[in-house]
Formats: sequence, structure tokens, C-alpha cells
Amino acid sequence: MNYLKKLVTGIFCLIFSAASAQDHPGIMMTKKNVAELRKGIATYPLLKKSYEEVKRNADYALSQPILVPVPKDAGGGFTHEQHKKNYSNILNCGVAYQISGEQKYADYVKTILLSYAAQYEKWPVHPKAKPGHQAGKMFWQSLNDFVWQVYTIQGYDMAFDGIAPADRKQIETHLFLPILKYFTVDCATTFNLIHNHGTWDIAAVGMTGYVLNKPEYVNMAIKGSKLDGKTGYLAQVDQLFSPDGYYTEGPYYQRYALLPFVIFAKAINNYQPALKIFQYRNQLLSKAINTSLQLTYTDGTFFPINDAIKDKTYQSAELVYGVDIAYADIKAQPQLLDIAQRQGEVIVSDAGLKIAADLAAGKMKSFNYQPQWIGDGASGTEGGLGILRYGDNQDQQCLLFKAASQGMGHGHFDRLNILYYDNNTEIFPDYGAARFLNIESKKGGDYLPENKTWAKQTVAHNTLVVDQTSNFKANAELAQEQHPEQLFFKNTKDIQAASATENHAYPGVKMTRTSALVNIEGLDKPLLIDLFQVNAAQNHQYDLPFWYKGQLVASSFKINAVKNNLQALGTNYGYQHLWLNAEENVAASGGYVTLLNNKRFYTTHFTTDADIKVKLVSLGANDPELNLVESKAFILSQPQAQNQLFFTITEVHGRTNPVNETVVGAANQVSGLKIISADEQQVAVSFKVKDKTYQYTINYKDKNKSVQLN
Amino acid sequence: MNYLKKLVTGIFCLIFSAASAQDHPGIMMTKKNVAELRKGIATYPLLKKSYEEVKRNADYALSQPILVPVPKDAGGGFTHEQHKKNYSNILNCGVAYQISGEQKYADYVKTILLSYAAQYEKWPVHPKAKPGHQAGKMFWQSLNDFVWQVYTIQGYDMAFDGIAPADRKQIETHLFLPILKYFTVDCATTFNLIHNHGTWDIAAVGMTGYVLNKPEYVNMAIKGSKLDGKTGYLAQVDQLFSPDGYYTEGPYYQRYALLPFVIFAKAINNYQPALKIFQYRNQLLSKAINTSLQLTYTDGTFFPINDAIKDKTYQSAELVYGVDIAYADIKAQPQLLDIAQRQGEVIVSDAGLKIAADLAAGKMKSFNYQPQWIGDGASGTEGGLGILRYGDNQDQQCLLFKAASQGMGHGHFDRLNILYYDNNTEIFPDYGAARFLNIESKKGGDYLPENKTWAKQTVAHNTLVVDQTSNFKANAELAQEQHPEQLFFKNTKDIQAASATENHAYPGVKMTRTSALVNIEGLDKPLLIDLFQVNAAQNHQYDLPFWYKGQLVASSFKINAVKNNLQALGTNYGYQHLWLNAEENVAASGGYVTLLNNKRFYTTHFTTDADIKVKLVSLGANDPELNLVESKAFILSQPQAQNQLFFTITEVHGRTNPVNETVVGAANQVSGLKIISADEQQVAVSFKVKDKTYQYTINYKDKNKSVQLN
Repeated sequence: MNYLKKLVTGIFCLIFSAASAQDHPGIMMTKKNVAELRKGIATYPLLKKSYEEVKRNADYALSQPILVPVPKDAGGGFTHEQHKKNYSNILNCGVAYQISGEQKYADYVKTILLSYAAQYEKWPVHPKAKPGHQAGKMFWQSLNDFVWQVYTIQGYDMAFDGIAPADRKQIETHLFLPILKYFTVDCATTFNLIHNHGTWDIAAVGMTGYVLNKPEYVNMAIKGSKLDGKTGYLAQVDQLFSPDGYYTEGPYYQRYALLPFVIFAKAINNYQPALKIFQYRNQLLSKAINTSLQLTYTDGTFFPINDAIKDKTYQSAELVYGVDIAYADIKAQPQLLDIAQRQGEVIVSDAGLKIAADLAAGKMKSFNYQPQWIGDGASGTEGGLGILRYGDNQDQQCLLFKAASQGMGHGHFDRLNILYYDNNTEIFPDYGAARFLNIESKKGGDYLPENKTWAKQTVAHNTLVVDQTSNFKANAELAQEQHPEQLFFKNTKDIQAASATENHAYPGVKMTRTSALVNIEGLDKPLLIDLFQVNAAQNHQYDLPFWYKGQLVASSFKINAVKNNLQALGTNYGYQHLWLNAEENVAASGGYVTLLNNKRFYTTHFTTDADIKVKLVSLGANDPELNLVESKAFILSQPQAQNQLFFTITEVHGRTNPVNETVVGAANQVSGLKIISADEQQVAVSFKVKDKTYQYTINYKDKNKSVQLN
Repeated sequence: MNYLKKLVTGIFCLIFSAASAQDHPGIMMTKKNVAELRKGIATYPLLKKSYEEVKRNADYALSQPILVPVPKDAGGGFTHEQHKKNYSNILNCGVAYQISGEQKYADYVKTILLSYAAQYEKWPVHPKAKPGHQAGKMFWQSLNDFVWQVYTIQGYDMAFDGIAPADRKQIETHLFLPILKYFTVDCATTFNLIHNHGTWDIAAVGMTGYVLNKPEYVNMAIKGSKLDGKTGYLAQVDQLFSPDGYYTEGPYYQRYALLPFVIFAKAINNYQPALKIFQYRNQLLSKAINTSLQLTYTDGTFFPINDAIKDKTYQSAELVYGVDIAYADIKAQPQLLDIAQRQGEVIVSDAGLKIAADLAAGKMKSFNYQPQWIGDGASGTEGGLGILRYGDNQDQQCLLFKAASQGMGHGHFDRLNILYYDNNTEIFPDYGAARFLNIESKKGGDYLPENKTWAKQTVAHNTLVVDQTSNFKANAELAQEQHPEQLFFKNTKDIQAASATENHAYPGVKMTRTSALVNIEGLDKPLLIDLFQVNAAQNHQYDLPFWYKGQLVASSFKINAVKNNLQALGTNYGYQHLWLNAEENVAASGGYVTLLNNKRFYTTHFTTDADIKVKLVSLGANDPELNLVESKAFILSQPQAQNQLFFTITEVHGRTNPVNETVVGAANQVSGLKIISADEQQVAVSFKVKDKTYQYTINYKDKNKSVQLN
């Protein structure tokens, strides 16, 4: 336990000063800063725009009847969406009250909260509890209730001075105290869970404790129900993040999980600055925010590994909070201003004021995407993610190498998966989750059945499938027990490489992958060189899919696609969802396929140590409700072998300009891929670029020689 | 023949003044303006940027070896692309010479043209002549040779004063004069063709005639080989455009066809201003440029009817020339400056100077997209296009109603087709052409076989298919003889509607379609109300496809998609390319399907006067080389009937915000579609919006009552 950890653990139980507890507001916006904030809104464009948006929404709320319906509908349904709107309205009106000083906004908060207070205690648990989840009272799962309270308590805190004491008493007695009881007693299991639902619960309880001046709730939130530190906020910070600030469920859930951590930390820091919460665990929260940003491509989207909604970007509210607080309260890194500017908004708050002022003062620097290895697991040794990047933020080649642990229930069975990006678009994508978020006609907006039958399965990813089954036969419990081992990560001017091995996903099969971006003199863009080595004592079928975007426009072999009677490729582990459009034999000497995507060409050359088949597949078989989204892949398929090396090089070349009707560089430049040797110590291959032969060697045993190009 | 026409016809044969003919440059850039232009480049941002781009390209050309290869390759191949690059280089270096005054640029033009002059006469016709087209000498079709010369002669004109007379003599004697001979004698048929290939030929010859001071060639270009005015430039202006400035092949080819018209007109206007060529046929060229712009959606893409490359926008070079000249030489409409600004460049020329100066002076007005009917045919009475639009240029709903004539060889069999746009994206798209432009691995970059078997066929469009065949059984000659008849076009504040009838496409079948955008009180966006009425004495199968983008997320009927053994829907007329994913029975009372596209919902409600099937199809059967691009449709299908009315309403509703994870308005608001009566005089239907019933009546016989909503 380091010094800060001791400090925090030692003094957490100090009661925070009554003075600060009675000052409202006291979380994102603090009473002493309100005058400055008002001035800032008049002065700084980004803050002005952000406040105008808040005020527009607050004014719209005021123009509408207040609706507090008896909870009835599942996610996406009317009462669900209405209660979500209500917490936004409460928050917006709270902000508008502080900034404008107009009583009507405080009155709105008062009236709607009195309406909740008049009903809340009568509501039973939600009648449409989400299967497998703890029900809330307002929403189908308690998680949404926690989120509601995290936002609502801030709105209340801001409207506090504008609500008469008698009304406040009514609201606190019949709404917030019963909520605190529900969250800590009825939901005690969740409250003490080391899991993001638990984080939201704790943050709601702790923040409410501060605002209502109930230190016992704050203490429970920080140290767990039993006040023994085995659960609660600090235990969560210790266990849910790796030392690199990675949250094991993956970037989509990291973003979501992060908000209650960050916002509750901000509250702790305001009310109990002596705890130095932002310093806790070597500034873990700062790392986690930065890691969240590093886990995006240059278009702002999070790498959609595991269950993930693909449109999600760092413009989501959680990262606006994260970036504002990271900059204002932890460390004022000028590159965060770049992200804030791209987010196009700040929280109307003390932190937002600082961001907007510094942006206006021209302090911004371009956000610096860094090639890096991000370790997974509480100690950072349970595999991890390799991120390779070349090029500036306008036109960047990026490879995500996934050798992380399973990531709990939202994890996918995709050991040693890669995602490849270029030119601000996906080249080899990940399907993400099978879900139409919040669209009620699609299974209530929840995960679709195809999330299990398709999206989580190994073949849905750009990684090896053995015998047409998934890693761990798609058993999440087994998968959770094992993680890949990182072999090395290299980051030099001309070679970036990640290497890892996974020996548990398929019994008796050892898989090792090394993916690299390699600069070659005379080529505009680095090559993606990928070596997937598999060793087994028995014969197996090995399928290596490359899911791709764009159109397949050329190949070294003739394609004779199935003309009619299209068949599913298999019956299980996702194969039942694949249409087999074509199947062609290719000699071990290999071949290539060329894709056209977003006006650039991508040629994947491949060679292996035995003849293979190339299978062209598309998604959609056994999908009676048309839940699956169009997707296409070419699969390098070895019907039967013990050891196999898949050596591929993907090169970016040329471009089309449909407006000017020009095409350049349609011909690829790499050729002559050869496997020289491959064993458990070392792999050596060669290839040609413009008649020059290069030898590329991977040394698994000597990290100093990990990857070499001669 | 109007006055101007007489004027032009009377004086065309006047020899232009020797003085102006000997001034170089004299086309897009004129000698007397060069000093002003240089100043403008230093002053106006858009002109500066445009020149910098030209100079960068010129400097790059200078840094590379000059290659004038013996013509050998088809479209997209090396020699093809090299000769295309060469004409760009010649033009860029010509401009750079005039602006910078640096001799090196003129030297480049001299050297490369001397290299052409040393070889041109030895080259035979191109060895890989494009089948069915007249071969060029440099390129696989003479068309490309004409284009080469249109650009090259401008570059030569600009470098003229920097090339020694002896070298000029060499170039003119051994390159340009042989080219003139090839274009007018060997290509005489094309030269006298009323067709866009002919226009390019004529423009090349006429412009070369001016620059070389060979009036005999200018005269031939203007009045045809026989100087009788039956062919040549004026005859082409008369016959290729409708009075509304529509070019019968459609917007994609209109854009392409327009450039030689416009640039040659500019040359004529410079050398023979007395001809008042821009006034010819009631300012036809100005109308044609404006109509080209009106034939785009707000994202700048041309409506991709007939053979069309879908990425094409008004940023293409042809429209940059068109807009610059239209503004500078015909009429300085401030809204053209908006387009110029979106084009992001101007031609470094007299016209570009004026545009850039006026933009800098703040004279721009927003481009005004106008709902309108555009007549087709030389007299404007051979059907046409209806364009309906609501909303501003940031978020516009737009419907293209295609009731034009066949449009020659590039026409599609899509009588009464509709294309529907909203929210800056396609909702019901047109496939466009089946072609990977200039990508040699895809049939040399030319039209694919599937352009005939799929893209041109009726079922590839959003219009009625009778008995699973195409209009005119896909016979282009028959189709060329007939055109639809416009019934009416209405453009009022709350109703925009287009109506037309087509009685020849299927023997014995009368088809009438009326499509409207209709504002309803209480709805944010207009409804698309579409009535497709078909009458026949015999029983037929009637299929009405709606090709859609996005995902199908809800329907009034249960979908049970085929799980395995997917079958092609038919054997001919494009049906052989359709996979039948699902087929559901729906009662005559109707139903709906809901699409999610670009974060908005679109629900198409339908009802008919008999039970129908809804077929869900996707593209890709019988496509052995994977030439087809993913596409999906729902088809309203009546297996057997004589008369049938398809009544559909498509409503836009709600939105999703995946970043904030919110969904609003997922439920549709229209219901209760009913057909009240339908005969050849009138159709009356009704529907409900939010419990209010509306009656919608179409009166075919009384134009004053054409469409009414009560």
C-alpha cells in the first residue's frame, strides 16, 4: 500500500466540514465560483454555446407538462424514456437556475421532485424487471435508477437555495432518503459488487450523502456497507482498473463505468480535499480517462471490442465530464483541450470554465495518440491491448491487437483478435454488439439473441477459429479464468509490433500471433505484417477470417461465387449465420485479395505452409428476424493440419477519385511472400517490394531481437 | 428561329479578327487579364488556394520524368492513365507559366508536346479499341482523345509565348494538325453525331482552330462538316438539350456533356463576341448549368438515374468550369457563389478571378434549390423529371420523380421511378450504374455485364414491374420511341406533387403514378404520399419495389426470413440477381415497415385493393464475380390482378442518438390508410394522423384540382 493509499484509508472516516456540506451547489459547480462562471459564459465561446444548449433544453422542459408516470415500460418504452428525460430536465434546470438566477427553473426542480416524492414510496419494484438483472423502481434495472439519482442529485444541489425548506424536507424525506435506503439495503448486493453497476450505486449514494449532509452514507460509499474497505469506492478503483487505467470490460463499458468514478471523485475532492482522491493509486483516474481516449480511433469512435455500440465516440457525455475534470482538477494537459474542442461542449461547471478559458487563450495542443501496450487485470499482467499507430490525426493507420482477458459477461471469444483502421475508416472491423440500442421493436432495445449466437463467437472476429468452434467453446466462466500472455511490444520509428500467445482457448492448441506495422523505404504507408502461428499435436481445421469493409475488386485466383441455393457454412458457433458465397482452392504459395474502401485500395497478400481454401462469406443465414447487419469476410481456411503459419501482408495503395474520375496505384507493390522457417523459438519469412527482398524475423525468446527486418 | 439564332447563323462564317487570334492565351485566361489575375491570386483566398494546387501539380510534373508511352492499355491501364496525367500536366504547367512567368513551365509543355509530335503520326489506331466504340489513337476510344485535346490545347495556348516558333511549328505540324485531321476525317461520323462524343470532338476541333488561327476548322465545328448547320455545335445545342436545359441522358452525363459546350462557348465568345453565343436559344447554356445544379441533392451528388457513378458531385471539374463561366460570363447570380465556395476551387482564369473577388466581397447568397418540373426532349414535351423539395439546404427532404424519356443508350428501364432523400442521405436510392470506374480488374473499369443484367432492369428501381419483366422487355430501341406523359406538377406551400402516366412500357398496361410531399399540421416533416395505379384488361403480376438504405427495425407483420438454402427470386430481367430472404402475406388492409437510417426512422405504410405479399430481397444471386454492391428492398407484390392501386405513405419520425444513447419518436404517427375510390378520373384515399382523418384526392382530368387534401 503506497503512501496516498494509506492516507486515504486512514482519513476517509473524518467527517467533512459542516460548512462545506451546507454550501450549495457543491459538486460540478461550486457556490464560490458561480460569479466567475457567469462571467465566463459571457466571454468564452465554447462555454457560451454549452450553456445556451443547457438553457434551451431547460426552457423546453418548462414549456412542457411535467410527467412523472408510474413506471411500466422496459428500456426504450415511454415511461423509461420519460424518466430519463426527467433527470436531464432536472439537471438542466438546476444549471439554468444557478446561472440565470431565475426562480422559474428552481420551481421546476421543486415541482417535479415533489411529484416524485408523492409517488416514489408507493411504487413497487419495476413490473418489467430485465431478466437476469436486479430491478429498479423507476426503471427495469436498478442501474438506471442509480444513473437517475447521480444526475438528479446534482440538479437538486443546484436548485437547493431556490426551494423552500419545507419542500426540501418533503423531497428529502419521501424521495431521497427512501432512494438511499433502496440503493443500500434492497440493492445491497449490487452496492457491494465490484462491478460498474456497483460504481453507479455507490456514486449515487455518496453524492446524495454529501448533498444531504449524511456522512454515514458517504462513508459506506467509500468503504463499503461494512466499512471494512473490502467493497466500496476505493476497492473498486483498486480492482476494476489495471495499473494502465484499463477497465476489463473494454472501451465501450470503460467509458460508461468511468463517469460515476470521476464525478464522485470530484464530489469527494470538493467536500474532503484532504483525501487527495485524484492522487489515489498513482493518479489512476487520470490514467483511466487518458486510456479511454487512447482507446479511440482518430474519428473519435471507441475500439468496439466486446459488447459495444459502434457509433459511440468520445463526444459522449461521460467523456465530456472526464476530460473536463481531468484537465481542471487533475492535470492541465494542453492536448485535452483538443478533445474538448472536438467534443464541442463543456460541462457548465467550474471545470468547463477552465477548459473554455484556456481554449480561448490558445493553449490547445493536438491530441497525441501514442502507440502503446495497455495491460489488463488489477496488476496489469493479465494480457492486454496493443495499439499500433502511424500517421497524424488526419490520416492515421491504426491496429488494435486484442490479447486482453475475457472482460466478464460482456466479453467476446476473440483471443488474439485484430482491428485495422486507415484513412479515417474501418478496414478490418469488429462487429461490436448485436443490438439496436433502445429500439423497442428490437427486443426492447436490449442485446439481441444474435449477440450470443453471432457477435460473441470467435468467427465474428479477425482471429483464428479451430474446428469451427469458438474459444473455450463459448463458455464465459472458463474463459474468465484464462488470459493470453503478452510476448512483447515494440515501438520504434519503423517497426511497431505486438505479440501474444494463447494456449487455453482450444485444448491442445497453442496460438501465437505477432502483428506489426512496418515502414518500408519507398512505400507511402507502412505494411501490416501479420503472422499467426498455430501448433497442435492433433489435426485440426484452422480458419482465419478477415472481416472487411468496402468491395472486393481483385484477387489472384478466379472467384466463382455460388449462383443459387446459397448455403449456411455451418450449424453452430456463429457459422450457422454465414452464407458461403464462394470457396476457392489456393496453393500454399499463396495469393492476394484487393479491397476498395473509401477510395483507397487494400491488398492482403497471404501465404501458408500448405494449400488452403479461401472462403468468401457474408452474414445473414439463420437470421429469421433480420437482426444482423451486413458484413463480409474472406477466410483463409486450412481443412486439416497440426501446425500452420498464416503469413499475411496487407498493403495500402493508390486511390480513386470518383469526382475527377481518376485512379492511381491500383496495382499492388508487394510480392513473393515466403515462409523460411517457423518453430517455437523463431519465425522467419521474406517478401519483395519493388524487386527488393526483405527478410522479416520474429524472435519469441529474445525480447531484444523481437522483430527484425533486413 | 428567333432573332439571336438568326444572328448567329448569319454571322458564324465571319472570320474572327486576326489580332485576337494571335493573342495568347485566349480561352479561359486572356492576355489582357493576366496582370489582374496575378494580383487576384495574391489577394483572394479561393483563387490563391486554387492556384497553389495548380502550381503544386505543375511542380510535381516537373519533378517527374516525362513519359509519352506508345498507347497500349484499356481504360484504367498504365498508358491510359499516363496520357490522362499528361494533359493535366500540360494544362497545369500552362497556367503556372502565365502566372509565375517562369520559363521552366513553358519548357515542360514544349518538351512533352515535341515528344508527342515525334510519335503521334506513327501511332496506329489504339490496339485495344473499346468494343462498340470508335477507337482513338492515344486511348481506347476516340472520346478520350477529344478530351485530351480540349485540355491540351488550352495548355499550349497558355505556354505559346514561351515556346520558340520553330518548336511551335513542329508541334502544330506533327501533332495538332494531324489531330485535327483525325478528329474531322477519320472520326467524321462522330464529328457529325448529335451526341456528347460529338460535342467533345467539335469543341476540340473548334478550340484548336482558334488557337492555331485556322478559321476553317472553327467554322466546321460550329456548323458541321458540310457547313450546313445540320450538325455541329449549334445543331447540338438545339437538339441535345430540352428548353429547360436538360440533357436526355441524365444528370451524370449532362455534367460530362456540358463541359465541351461551355468551354467552347467561352472560346467563341472571346474570339467572336458578336456571335453572342451565351444568348443563343434563350441563354440555353446558362439554363443547362443551372439545371445541372438543380439535379443534385443537398450533399452535392447528382441524382444517379440512368448509368451514373454515384459518388459524382458538383465538385467535379466540369461544374467548376460551368459555375465559373455561368457567373462570370453569363449572369452573376450570387447563389452560384455558394456552389463555388462548396466546390472549394475555381479555375485559375478570368472567370475564377471574378468568382473569387466577389466571394471575398461577401456577395454570396445561399444556393436556392427549387421544386420544379424539368421537361425532357428538344421541345420539352417528352416527359421529364419532377423534383420535390422541402426544408433548407442543411436538412432537406427531396423526391425525384422520373418520367423522362429513355435517354439513349445509357438509359434505364425505369419509367415512373422515384428516388427519395432526407437528412443528407439516400432513403430510397437508385442503384446507378454497375461499374467500378477505371478499376482495371473490374472489366477494365468499364460497365460490368451486370449493368445490363441488373442495373438497367426495371426491378432495380423504385417503380412497378409487371410480370417479372422489364419495361419494353429491356429493348432500348423500342423504349427510345416512347416517353411518359406528364399529367401535372404542383408546387404550393403545403403540397408538392408530380404525376405522370406511361402506357407503352408494358403492352396493354396503363400505369399512372402521383407522388407528393404533403405538409400535415402537427408533423415536423412532410409525408411522402405515393399512389401507383395500374390498369389492364388481363391479369398480371405487379411488383412495386422500394430499395432502401439502413436497417429494417420493425414491421406490422411477422418476418420469418429464410434460414438456409437461399433462392434467387427469378431467372431473368434482374430477378435472377435477387435473393428472396422472406415472403409474407399481408391483407389488403395493409401494414407497414420501419427503417432506421442515419439515426432517423422512416415508416412506409401501405394498403392496396387486394391481399398482397411483401417480399424482402437482397442483391447478389447469380453474381459469380461478386460485381454487385449490397442492396436491399421490400417489394409490395400482387400475384395476380387486372387493376391495382398501391397507396403508400412514408413518414419520417423520431431519431436515435447513439452517443447520448437516447431514442425519441420511434413510434409512427400515421394510421388507417384506406382506398375510397379509384378510377381513371380520380383517386380518393384517406388516412389518419394523431386521430384526425385526412382525405387525399387526385384529379387527373382537372389540373386545377390536381391534388387536394381535406
